[in-house]
Amino acid sequence: MSEAFDTGRGSEPFDTVDVIRTKRDGGTLDDAQIDWVIDAYTRGAVADEQMSALAMAILLRGMSGAEIARWTAAMIASGETLDLSSVTRPTTDKHSTGGVGDKITLPLAPLVAACGAAVPQLSGRGLGHTGGTLDKLESIPGWRAQLSNDEFLRQLGSVGAVVCAAGDGLAPADRKLYALRDVTGTVEAIPLIASSIMSKKIAEGSSALVLDVKVGTGAFMKSVDDARELARTMVALGTEHGTHTVALLTDMSTPLGLTAGNALEVRESLEVLAGGGPSDVVTLTLALAREMLAGAGLVDVDPADALRDGRAMDVWRAMITAQGGDPSAALPVARETHTVPAPTSGTVARLDALAVGVAAWRLGAGRARKEDAVSAGAGVVLHAKPGDTVQAGQPLLELHADDAGRFDRALDALHGAYDIGTVYEPSPLILDRIA
Amino acid sequence: MSEAFDTGRGSEPFDTVDVIRTKRDGGTLDDAQIDWVIDAYTRGAVADEQMSALAMAILLRGMSGAEIARWTAAMIASGETLDLSSVTRPTTDKHSTGGVGDKITLPLAPLVAACGAAVPQLSGRGLGHTGGTLDKLESIPGWRAQLSNDEFLRQLGSVGAVVCAAGDGLAPADRKLYALRDVTGTVEAIPLIASSIMSKKIAEGSSALVLDVKVGTGAFMKSVDDARELARTMVALGTEHGTHTVALLTDMSTPLGLTAGNALEVRESLEVLAGGGPSDVVTLTLALAREMLAGAGLVDVDPADALRDGRAMDVWRAMITAQGGDPSAALPVARETHTVPAPTSGTVARLDALAVGVAAWRLGAGRARKEDAVSAGAGVVLHAKPGDTVQAGQPLLELHADDAGRFDRALDALHGAYDIGTVYEPSPLILDRIA
Repeated sequence: MSEAFDTGRGSEPFDTVDVIRTKRDGGTLDDAQIDWVIDAYTRGAVADEQMSALAMAILLRGMSGAEIARWTAAMIASGETLDLSSVTRPTTDKHSTGGVGDKITLPLAPLVAACGAAVPQLSGRGLGHTGGTLDKLESIPGWRAQLSNDEFLRQLGSVGAVVCAAGDGLAPADRKLYALRDVTGTVEAIPLIASSIMSKKIAEGSSALVLDVKVGTGAFMKSVDDARELARTMVALGTEHGTHTVALLTDMSTPLGLTAGNALEVRESLEVLAGGGPSDVVTLTLALAREMLAGAGLVDVDPADALRDGRAMDVWRAMITAQGGDPSAALPVARETHTVPAPTSGTVARLDALAVGVAAWRLGAGRARKEDAVSAGAGVVLHAKPGDTVQAGQPLLELHADDAGRFDRALDALHGAYDIGTVYEPSPLILDRIA
Repeated sequence: MSEAFDTGRGSEPFDTVDVIRTKRDGGTLDDAQIDWVIDAYTRGAVADEQMSALAMAILLRGMSGAEIARWTAAMIASGETLDLSSVTRPTTDKHSTGGVGDKITLPLAPLVAACGAAVPQLSGRGLGHTGGTLDKLESIPGWRAQLSNDEFLRQLGSVGAVVCAAGDGLAPADRKLYALRDVTGTVEAIPLIASSIMSKKIAEGSSALVLDVKVGTGAFMKSVDDARELARTMVALGTEHGTHTVALLTDMSTPLGLTAGNALEVRESLEVLAGGGPSDVVTLTLALAREMLAGAGLVDVDPADALRDGRAMDVWRAMITAQGGDPSAALPVARETHTVPAPTSGTVARLDALAVGVAAWRLGAGRARKEDAVSAGAGVVLHAKPGDTVQAGQPLLELHADDAGRFDRALDALHGAYDIGTVYEPSPLILDRIA
């Protein structure tokens, strides 16, 4: 009934309840309503309890492509946009929707910079079972995540790669909305996920962007169809804003590489930068590097060369040093380890990503709340991956923690997490490409 | 993903996000979840933004009969329940879902008391275009809505009828949730409407209850199907809690009687108590009185007699006097009036309830916010109703306000609100009965 009455909107051009009811009843929000609701929410004229009802309505009713595009644009407009015009190299970035053992940014950013592009990566911290790139890098003694805009641009010019914390100025509406969605059961809405990721990435100002959309138990998207829809939505948003955007759908049914944990993953990344490392990590790093370079117009370089000849490692060392880190310092090691032996002999048929992620999280590698600290040394080392053959009693997993009291709950998480048998059906690492 | 993690629920037995997600994904909340979420919301452990997301999920996903029953029981359990065991007469009450010109409680409560039952009516104030019974009674000089529990019980014993404000002790969870729903676009959910009404009515402790579920433009429920669903849900809830409950579906496409406004409606109610009054008001008053008396086991009395012989008026005077009012005092009159003439001659085919309600509201009879004051004299008087014949230029409507500046916006509301022609299709006042 509110349309007939003065429901107290004061000087606001829209009534919040009308906007909520439009979406609730399956209607389409127009541009002016979207611009207003994002702006009004950012300045507090739309209350948290109103935005959460709207978010739930969006989750259950969906949004058209045009609505998602406008919602994203409004979130970008809520804050500043980085100006990378002073960077002479072509800029290209990557975003992963998050997985277990997903340390790819660590070798990837210096590798792509070594091939001639500039990589301006504003990154986040881990929450829940997926690790955060900043948490991993912070296990390097001295390294700091916070840079001023000036430091960021200077390092991008001199080193070619920056991985640092996003400032508060980019898409503040998204920051506020994300925190709200987290406590109101409204995270799992593709329009809201896509606009959240893309508003930050577009505001970051990179000319090209490659999205690594994870699919599987350890990923946010459990089905290929959902992941494909999210990828298409994000690629459309990037393209519309003039950012060259490509997405790869990649498998997250089992962890990437042989480690999940902060310092453990830095160590594995150094193996890749040294020309070695687990084959899945190398394969995905190279595939994403080729996409990033192609997006930047650099098609005549082979990133595999830059891994082989040490140029990527040189950029890594420069990148870590520029942010106060000591690339030669010893990495932290957990005080306690506990080995899980293979219960039987055979081929590892399954090793569940979510279970390993939860175990690493419970060992101290992740946090339950934003303000929690993480353990640098904690995590899980895999001694075998799906497809590998193991003997009964041989180490299958190794748990690392600073406190042996954490092993029990981590082991609970790993209960039923793996199958050892005679049949193994390999699944591709890269499932699809959306351009 | 929260089930795998400690998401900060502390000592609470449930995680709020899990409860929201269960309903969001179309699941059923179990008894323990419902009991907990209502209790936790009442004490602030579930935040407003979480409850609004849950309310939106309930609105869009629905609730089973068992869920609605438990939700209602949990809201009743959030506060006190009145103990009417000291009242010797059988107790019976009525609740209307709200309409325009719906003054029925005023003649009905004393009438039913005059026939031997006790009527313990805890009532509300108007918000928006539907008037509130307490606002109407407050136009009587000296009358007060607030009674202590002791005063309430004493008057119920001595006079047999009490219409007063519900105390803060009944169903506090509903009080908090209703205010939240009002600003989050989550009012229009049948499970939430039914549980809101019935939690208060069951906590009130009456043995029998008659629900007047309004249908039409001036009502909350616009369609008979929705009204029937709401009525069935509420009758089931009442029955389950041992309250003899019947619902009538009644027409609210045109105002009840010839007045909409506080003192105007008191005056019209006095006509009914004096044995006269508009036929639709008399018909509905008697129909509801018969249902209330039947619910109380009093089937040998004819309420029409008590209107005719003045017994109902005697109870009215005692009821008003007991609450400090002077039943003989002159009622307030608005300072300004404005007559709307019939634009053409013919039969009134339609006179829209919502438009008249909004006009009365804009004239000062209603409030936009709970804390607003209402004008006692303001409102609309109808000189003709659907089915009546009018001559061009003859008064059709009469607007009453304390300030002539209010007429323009009231007239705006009445634009297109009536049709005068040659065809009139009468529609029944009582559309259905749900027992």
